[in-house]
Amino acid sequence: MSQDHLDARRRQILDGARSCFARHGYEGATVRRLEEATGLSRGAIFHHFRDKESLFLALAEDDVLRMTEVVAAQGLVQVMRELLSSTPSANGEALNPADWLGTRLEVSRRLRTDPEFRSRWAERSEQLTVATRERLLRQREAGNLRDDIDVEVLTAFLELVLEGLVSHLAMGLPADDMDPVLDLVEETVRRHRRAT
Amino acid sequence: MSQDHLDARRRQILDGARSCFARHGYEGATVRRLEEATGLSRGAIFHHFRDKESLFLALAEDDVLRMTEVVAAQGLVQVMRELLSSTPSANGEALNPADWLGTRLEVSRRLRTDPEFRSRWAERSEQLTVATRERLLRQREAGNLRDDIDVEVLTAFLELVLEGLVSHLAMGLPADDMDPVLDLVEETVRRHRRAT
Repeated sequence: MSQDHLDARRRQILDGARSCFARHGYEGATVRRLEEATGLSRGAIFHHFRDKESLFLALAEDDVLRMTEVVAAQGLVQVMRELLSSTPSANGEALNPADWLGTRLEVSRRLRTDPEFRSRWAERSEQLTVATRERLLRQREAGNLRDDIDVEVLTAFLELVLEGLVSHLAMGLPADDMDPVLDLVEETVRRHRRAT
Repeated sequence: MSQDHLDARRRQILDGARSCFARHGYEGATVRRLEEATGLSRGAIFHHFRDKESLFLALAEDDVLRMTEVVAAQGLVQVMRELLSSTPSANGEALNPADWLGTRLEVSRRLRTDPEFRSRWAERSEQLTVATRERLLRQREAGNLRDDIDVEVLTAFLELVLEGLVSHLAMGLPADDMDPVLDLVEETVRRHRRAT
């Protein structure tokens, strides 16, 4: 198989596994269900990924990477807006909230119940924090950010709101009226305009 | 049994069940474990609560009621502060984050996976929204609230941050540096002070 072919196969596995995890949860995504969802045999699947855990981590890392790209270009509030609107991101891949949330919620659940997973996940989630902080520092240098609050605090604030939004959507609560809330969040970190 | 005795017994069941659900999750809290955690027989437990579902809902309602009291007196940011500091609330009952979070997370999980539970829960969670909105309206009348943003938007903003904080704590992420973030959240809904 060529490298292109291998990459495509890997992508096929990840896409199938994503909807399988979203639908059945980590525990419920049995090898048989993963075979059905990917259209591949267990031999083919575990040729690419050592085990189910590795497959899940690869998916979750994919999400973090995509989010990090959006953060670098447009900021963390844009990640939240894309999550709400489900429009394609800059690189053309749609952020499908239902699937993305499934993975994210599964990460949350395992962070809560599995200390080993927690330590393995820490460095991955740190990437998003770093990307957010760097974006805010650039915005501060450009004079677009308020300068009376530490960048660390603004980063933690944005991450907290993102976490709330993920949880909100995951619980199936209505999100039609969320745009003005995100406007407020964005305004909160921006430089205050001088009253005229 | 006197009413006082019945109330005390009900309280004993709720307290034991709370730690049992927090420790084992809803599914894992078997009748045997509930007996151990409460120190009572299944007969005594289900004399007070029709079934496990009713027992869990009673617990979750207790939480909402306590939060609603704090919101009415001191606002939703205070609920977040108490969640962080685990200090006793106004009525002397400690909000134990570990237990409270267990219940809250279980509600989140079931909202996500159980549409029937979702509709049953909707009116309960609405109580907190109503209390938050009413508190903000009183604050606006008193001139303490910013008046350029709709109260509905400010309510949704505060609820989103609370949801994020619950999720953050539930995932075992560090919360030592969260105080300045909550200060920022509080400042965001307050009336902007005129620059001097």
